[in-house]
Amino acid sequence: MSDLTLTLDEVHALATRVLSHNGCNAANAAAVADVITAAERDGCHSHGLMRLAGYVASLKSGKVNGNADPGVEKIAGAVLRVDGDRGFAPLALARGREPLIEAAKTSGIAALALTDIHHFAALWTEIEPIAEAGLCALACVSYKPAVIPAGGSKPLYGTNPLAFGWPRPGKPPVIFDQASSVMARGEVMLAARESKALPPGVGVDKDGRETTDPNEVLDGALLAFGGHKGSSIAMMIELFAGALIGECFSFEAAERDNNDGGPPSGGELIIAMDPKLFGDSEGWAAHADKLFAEIEAQPGARLPSARRYRNRGETASAGITLSAKVHDSILALCEPTGSA
Amino acid sequence: MSDLTLTLDEVHALATRVLSHNGCNAANAAAVADVITAAERDGCHSHGLMRLAGYVASLKSGKVNGNADPGVEKIAGAVLRVDGDRGFAPLALARGREPLIEAAKTSGIAALALTDIHHFAALWTEIEPIAEAGLCALACVSYKPAVIPAGGSKPLYGTNPLAFGWPRPGKPPVIFDQASSVMARGEVMLAARESKALPPGVGVDKDGRETTDPNEVLDGALLAFGGHKGSSIAMMIELFAGALIGECFSFEAAERDNNDGGPPSGGELIIAMDPKLFGDSEGWAAHADKLFAEIEAQPGARLPSARRYRNRGETASAGITLSAKVHDSILALCEPTGSA
Repeated sequence: MSDLTLTLDEVHALATRVLSHNGCNAANAAAVADVITAAERDGCHSHGLMRLAGYVASLKSGKVNGNADPGVEKIAGAVLRVDGDRGFAPLALARGREPLIEAAKTSGIAALALTDIHHFAALWTEIEPIAEAGLCALACVSYKPAVIPAGGSKPLYGTNPLAFGWPRPGKPPVIFDQASSVMARGEVMLAARESKALPPGVGVDKDGRETTDPNEVLDGALLAFGGHKGSSIAMMIELFAGALIGECFSFEAAERDNNDGGPPSGGELIIAMDPKLFGDSEGWAAHADKLFAEIEAQPGARLPSARRYRNRGETASAGITLSAKVHDSILALCEPTGSA
Repeated sequence: MSDLTLTLDEVHALATRVLSHNGCNAANAAAVADVITAAERDGCHSHGLMRLAGYVASLKSGKVNGNADPGVEKIAGAVLRVDGDRGFAPLALARGREPLIEAAKTSGIAALALTDIHHFAALWTEIEPIAEAGLCALACVSYKPAVIPAGGSKPLYGTNPLAFGWPRPGKPPVIFDQASSVMARGEVMLAARESKALPPGVGVDKDGRETTDPNEVLDGALLAFGGHKGSSIAMMIELFAGALIGECFSFEAAERDNNDGGPPSGGELIIAMDPKLFGDSEGWAAHADKLFAEIEAQPGARLPSARRYRNRGETASAGITLSAKVHDSILALCEPTGSA
């Protein structure tokens, strides 16, 4: 079958239609569609439309509350919490964002703990508006066991992404969003969908043997990036998004998940800091730009977010390309049998 | 020449004597000797007595102020700054520690920015007392260019360690302290001193060619751990310990350093959080222990700090072993010619 092209507005409308048809109220459908559209816009297809089938499954199974009404509360001087009300993460994040920004601009540093959310792990979409507001920020989230602790043999950590953003007034922020595994699970899912082999060193099969077959890795486990150092970062993220904020670890999320194909329940931690309040209120942005200039002056090196921004420039006019097969499978989610 | 054994008290006395003889006042000498002793105690010789020659060089050259009198100020609601007064980092850290702990216990999260310090990068010694006070903490510091940005060819980032600590009431905290390079520069220095080859993949020579010769790597550059992901973390640390707090980047530190062999001037950022104030005030510690138990249940996996604590148990009674050659070179730092 052939490919077809969708504008970003069409991507948003399609995602909204699928989610609304399957039990999301308008606020939740719009918040999730925003994230899906941003992912497709920036070339991050592993977090785009292909995820809809899983979200629909979780709405149908009743695991995710499509009418979630997340509430924000201040639980310490510089700590906020959003109770996600068993919904998808984006609405909880949207409700917590402005209070977090306000708290960081007041105290210099502030944290936002999100609990009882179902997260699908495109953290850069969350970091970007915080950075656009002039703050630097860190975010992390766990998932279900997929990564083996260094030296061990069984998956324990989620792919546990860590995202960081640095504000650049008048320019797009510098942002990275990286899984603690060598490769993100979404990228492995994409390779499986496209029947592409993985590079060596990404993961092992269910018996612990190295393999480049993405389906075998999805049944097996991923390796942490950089050996024990990436493994340590994955552990830290388990603690930040788990014990610190009173939420579950990846292995606990898996124990209580119904495996309907959608994201499990869990938590997220975001930390925001206002560079204006850390000692160099006037010069911080120009100073940081000197570092970025040094990076960009090296042929072959690039700022972490450069590729996403380039993709964004292209998709704004060209839209995104989708195989007719994938498009049909998404449309099927809105058919009467799909809503049974 | 043969080896000799020193008790930890003897290590401390030797370091204090050398530093005092070369221009440190009592407070600064004691603070630095504490860190050197902790490093030797925990088997981290790369940050132990072997560093004294460099510290002495920096005291003699006048780069480091042996009489530094660091002052603490609150610069935002949850942000503290210590001006290091051009001294070695340990006294600045000691002065900032209690105010940071107090601020985190008040606001839930707080940050400490250290500026105008000369740091020698054993961050776990700084994280440990904060974790012992019941807080989880992150610390990071840059250095001089030693690590190539992913895709590039020239060193730009320091080895930029990131340390993390998690408190365990009644037990030693879990702490990791890891360079953003595949191997810490201190470990490469130790290999050079011992004429040992490095494992492959650690670094390149001054012409960018891979080498296992530690001296060639010290003249060349280290690679970031985990490719572009470790490189991103190194960049984040440059921003945290640099532009965020109004201090220099690694490449700027190098530009203003006199290359006397001691640590350059720079900054450090520490973030502390009180798990009691993040939502699970009663259960957080027992909950985290479940994760640690899962890690330790996997043969071959271990908690990041396990080796240090095991070394600590051994050196408490057995002391540390030093080659007579190294011991003599340290004693020479106290000879009349050494104080010229």
